[in-house]
Amino acid sequence: MNRLAQLLQQHRNQVEQQLDQLISTAGSIEPRLQQTMRHGLLNGGKRLRPALVYLSHQLCTGQLPNELTKRAAVAIECIHSYSLVHDDLPAMDDDDLRRGQPTCHIAFDEASAILAGDALQCLAFEHLSEPINGYPAALQLRMLNTLARASGERGMVAGQAFDLAHVGKPLTLEQLQAMHACKTGALITAAVELGALSAGTAGDDKLPDLRRYGDLIGLAFQIQDDLLDIEGDTATLGKPQGSDAAQNKPTYPALLGLDGARARLQQLHDEAIGILSTYGDDADDLIALTHYIVNRDH
Amino acid sequence: MNRLAQLLQQHRNQVEQQLDQLISTAGSIEPRLQQTMRHGLLNGGKRLRPALVYLSHQLCTGQLPNELTKRAAVAIECIHSYSLVHDDLPAMDDDDLRRGQPTCHIAFDEASAILAGDALQCLAFEHLSEPINGYPAALQLRMLNTLARASGERGMVAGQAFDLAHVGKPLTLEQLQAMHACKTGALITAAVELGALSAGTAGDDKLPDLRRYGDLIGLAFQIQDDLLDIEGDTATLGKPQGSDAAQNKPTYPALLGLDGARARLQQLHDEAIGILSTYGDDADDLIALTHYIVNRDH
Repeated sequence: MNRLAQLLQQHRNQVEQQLDQLISTAGSIEPRLQQTMRHGLLNGGKRLRPALVYLSHQLCTGQLPNELTKRAAVAIECIHSYSLVHDDLPAMDDDDLRRGQPTCHIAFDEASAILAGDALQCLAFEHLSEPINGYPAALQLRMLNTLARASGERGMVAGQAFDLAHVGKPLTLEQLQAMHACKTGALITAAVELGALSAGTAGDDKLPDLRRYGDLIGLAFQIQDDLLDIEGDTATLGKPQGSDAAQNKPTYPALLGLDGARARLQQLHDEAIGILSTYGDDADDLIALTHYIVNRDH
Repeated sequence: MNRLAQLLQQHRNQVEQQLDQLISTAGSIEPRLQQTMRHGLLNGGKRLRPALVYLSHQLCTGQLPNELTKRAAVAIECIHSYSLVHDDLPAMDDDDLRRGQPTCHIAFDEASAILAGDALQCLAFEHLSEPINGYPAALQLRMLNTLARASGERGMVAGQAFDLAHVGKPLTLEQLQAMHACKTGALITAAVELGALSAGTAGDDKLPDLRRYGDLIGLAFQIQDDLLDIEGDTATLGKPQGSDAAQNKPTYPALLGLDGARARLQQLHDEAIGILSTYGDDADDLIALTHYIVNRDH
């Protein structure tokens, strides 16, 4: 296993342990709600957003994650998970499988899936707003605001709404880009920002660069997703290959051609690496993660 | 119009103006999402929770609401509205009408209703986490945490999940009480707490009393709801009278009898008033609101 794979594994273990604890200690009068939350949360995700939080913090400080970094990593994964649970619902993308497993409304029922998603979103803000000794409340508040802005009606939710409103309709490249900037990009950029914010003053001057980096890899992530849907393998993807075309979804390859999309991906990758390279050794792991994002096979 | 009615009208106008501004200035790439949010948010609600925030602050300070009070009032109404939008969904309570108007998934569509609810929840936390000059960030963070705890898997969402899991099943009085303590009680208590927290140090010593008061009126509110469903008038209620019995929902009158439920309501009212009476003139409006809650006809 190479260094990045090891590191991702470590981060994943840490985040999953925290997520697991968070749900099991939460205590609810309705156990089925917790079971559904658990199903939506602990389903073998790549935990890419938490990794971005960790490695962005590392770039800023050269240090291991602090308590704020860890909270933010857990919170952002709660938001990401809730969005997947809701996106899979029959009224939305109507997906039965996610990472090879039955989706929440299939494994449980539709009402449980809606409520589990609602509770997971709330849990993100609850977890990040718990008082933490030794860190400025103003910083924690700023992190909360960053997460909320990225997740809501100007961010992730808007992107999903736009996507649903345009199924089967042609999009321009600008529209496609604006949609993905909201739908997946906002939360990816927020992950990078949250890592930098958790670094306190060490992150302040790096925020503009890291924000730009986040926007670039958010877009790159989506183009790679589109390419995988054409070139990937159903078993590796954990979802049917070719589903974008089957659902007549607008994609980068459809608008730019396969070679054009590949070239754009490379361009975004190069620009992102260009930004990170100015930060010396502390950026090495984030650089490795950036390579991974554009070369991943699922 | 009596003093309380005037006051409630004033608060309602203020909150609705803020809610209106919040949505119209938010800017989204998908206008339909905002329209659905607006439909769910600005639909003639009584704005009882914001009034509790305002009047609890007034009890603590004798002053007009400050910026924190106003933020909290708007945030809690966003949470309440999102929960109604989701509760009305076909997979949940499947209601076509709310306050005499078509519910969000009827007026728009199911996906829009799910997403509008998601965005309204997020907006509550976004609005309350925006930096406010002149107020301690630690206080704002504590208010956020209070709101999140009341709304999630140990509060409101848990109550709704428990309710759905027990449709048509008999409940004990303890179970019914635990369900309502989560489903409606948690957010009502949070409203009272948020008002006191927004008063800063003036609210600190009053928090335990006000929490207890919130628990009492939360329960009283629910019993009155159950009684109205039996004794109320469909036109005034804005929803079909008798729908609890038709859906075989467990209610206080079903468990305690009509007279028993009325007696319990009176008891809760008296205990709540007993708490408030120790606070002098500044409690007068909250006392009036308490009378209103147990005597309202819709």
